[in-house]
Amino acid sequence: MPYYIGDVIQDSGKLTARTVEKFREGGIDARICSRVDGIDGEAHEVHLADGSRVPYDILTLATGTEVLLPGIPGEDREGVFVLKSLGDALHIKSYIEQTGCRKALIVGAGFIGLEVCENLRERGVAVQIVNRGDLPAHRWDPQFGREILKTMISRGVDFFPRVSILSIEGGSDYRLRLNTDQGPFEGDLILLAMGVKPHVALARQMGIALGDSGAIRVNLSQRTSQANVYAVGDCAESFHRVSRRWVSIPLGDIANKQGRIAGSVIGGVPRVFPGIVGAQSFRIFHLEVAATGLDEREAAASGFDPVSALLWGNASANAMSQPRRLGLKLIADRASGLLLGAQAVGEAGAVGRINTLSAALWAGLSLDDVYNLDLAYSPPYGGSWDLIHNAARTLLQQI
Amino acid sequence: MPYYIGDVIQDSGKLTARTVEKFREGGIDARICSRVDGIDGEAHEVHLADGSRVPYDILTLATGTEVLLPGIPGEDREGVFVLKSLGDALHIKSYIEQTGCRKALIVGAGFIGLEVCENLRERGVAVQIVNRGDLPAHRWDPQFGREILKTMISRGVDFFPRVSILSIEGGSDYRLRLNTDQGPFEGDLILLAMGVKPHVALARQMGIALGDSGAIRVNLSQRTSQANVYAVGDCAESFHRVSRRWVSIPLGDIANKQGRIAGSVIGGVPRVFPGIVGAQSFRIFHLEVAATGLDEREAAASGFDPVSALLWGNASANAMSQPRRLGLKLIADRASGLLLGAQAVGEAGAVGRINTLSAALWAGLSLDDVYNLDLAYSPPYGGSWDLIHNAARTLLQQI
Repeated sequence: MPYYIGDVIQDSGKLTARTVEKFREGGIDARICSRVDGIDGEAHEVHLADGSRVPYDILTLATGTEVLLPGIPGEDREGVFVLKSLGDALHIKSYIEQTGCRKALIVGAGFIGLEVCENLRERGVAVQIVNRGDLPAHRWDPQFGREILKTMISRGVDFFPRVSILSIEGGSDYRLRLNTDQGPFEGDLILLAMGVKPHVALARQMGIALGDSGAIRVNLSQRTSQANVYAVGDCAESFHRVSRRWVSIPLGDIANKQGRIAGSVIGGVPRVFPGIVGAQSFRIFHLEVAATGLDEREAAASGFDPVSALLWGNASANAMSQPRRLGLKLIADRASGLLLGAQAVGEAGAVGRINTLSAALWAGLSLDDVYNLDLAYSPPYGGSWDLIHNAARTLLQQI
Repeated sequence: MPYYIGDVIQDSGKLTARTVEKFREGGIDARICSRVDGIDGEAHEVHLADGSRVPYDILTLATGTEVLLPGIPGEDREGVFVLKSLGDALHIKSYIEQTGCRKALIVGAGFIGLEVCENLRERGVAVQIVNRGDLPAHRWDPQFGREILKTMISRGVDFFPRVSILSIEGGSDYRLRLNTDQGPFEGDLILLAMGVKPHVALARQMGIALGDSGAIRVNLSQRTSQANVYAVGDCAESFHRVSRRWVSIPLGDIANKQGRIAGSVIGGVPRVFPGIVGAQSFRIFHLEVAATGLDEREAAASGFDPVSALLWGNASANAMSQPRRLGLKLIADRASGLLLGAQAVGEAGAVGRINTLSAALWAGLSLDDVYNLDLAYSPPYGGSWDLIHNAARTLLQQI
């Protein structure tokens, strides 16, 4: 009898009931909203918080990530949120509606912080972002970070770099005050968006091996170090086809793929997960932001000798009216000539180009191949020499 | 002394003068607007129409294509156009302005006919397209042809399928009348957009070998069968990496690449042109239309056993508001599992996906690889399982 144990959707209950019904239709005993306190790997039993025990033959850990918290006084106050689950999103939404939130403070300028800032601005809420680093989206080249920052400022978002947060207390002009080394900030809502780490407490307690990344070590079939225990999704490592290392990159599409692999293997159809290349993207207002492969730091750490070129151009041919600015950075290995990574930011065409280069990385193409790639040229979508070709050419000249 | 002979830009003269100046700055004697009547391959001399002869050590043929004409009475009347050069475009534009053109007839619904129809509609000119085949863009799947047709009709374009044109004469309600087997059509302007063929008259006269495609046969360095004679661009064949045949696909980006290869080789730096995968795209109103690789007919002719799947989905995740419809067709080989081709049509995301699949074709990826590709997932740009993954999965189930 297959079991599903965990939280599904923490909403008002309607979707949850529907999900349980779906599980039941599939012959699965779903114990949703059931906290697992421990797992006995030898007895093959899951211990639930209500004291009951559920036996298993095969166990799959899909425990995801946990949100990083700053560990500062007041972080548990009303109005201080993280955003991980649908439940979190619903709580934030109702808090905004009920309190008539005028201004929000966002701590952190990664994916989540930036995506929320866009949505808050669209609701008419003032937004101030305080960030530990110099620029938003620190995984991207500083030129791209500045482009993103420019867009944020043009949409009325205040950005404060190099800020360390100290404590949260009640505010005077607004509901909450965030004290920092740069002085106090006030807002009606505070979102802590400082990143996540793999949620591996149960795996650790079971004695399952973790990888260097801190996520659960798995093989290509998603098997862990313990017999009959699988791990999938954000709590598990993935093989990175460019660095040839096992890494922790918590993203929904990877999680989905790993889940299907494990399901297939458990169901008796052997399959392997052939790995990832680190493709990722997000939107901030009208900007597409995307990256794939390795950045220079990761490339050097993997043993490559990275060189890079960053070019600005247009998402369409120069002859077209309404040019839409697009920047592309390519990273390659000086020794082998292999493409190692790419980043793109622009009003259009960034994700498409990064996906094209993700396919190139997947196949292990050289920069020379990238320079020669046959792309679907048409003036609305690029020049006869696409920005991909021009960036590859610039970089080839450096090698 | 390098020479450039040919027509550069047939405009009012300003751009032409600038181009000549650029050539001169580069130490090139440009004889623009100079017709070549013949070439003496043995004497190494180019014969110009003005009687002069230009000697050469190395000759590059970049004679492009010639427009296919129907060969019907009246096709040379005033107001009947083809669109090949910038000069043609300028003539069409001034004709429209001078005559107050109310309605245009376009013969043919390929790239050129469709792109012009959009531009004429934007100028407020009524457009009727008469087409030999059933649907516009016949290289694409009929489902996509119908999608394009729907868009055209929604923008006020009349489309008449299965029409054979017979003659052109003066009109009664409009300036011109196009007689066809389906009766007469009238308009102030007629555009003949029936395709092109490689312009190989000079090559043929020199005894240079042509390929089966009708274009000039070249090797990977763009050398023809005659010593010291190169050919590049639409007049020359290209190696198709999927069909492994030499083909004639007249597109500007391929021409640009071949030109650079020949220039490098002539300049003493050996290089080869690694070929094409048949990537192409155009825009018709708000629709992106793109394709790459082989269609089923070409795949079968190349010896493959093609199977295909066509899926409709969205360019963004289903959870996003304002879904933008996108269709994707994948073609693969049943025997080898290789990806062979792809087509996409949609309001967004079609070109990006086709370029991604072009990189996959370039690298010779299997359908299984395509199913596993790591793409830059973000809800505004696709689902966690992208349409590429879903189409690959559907097709894998057929194999």
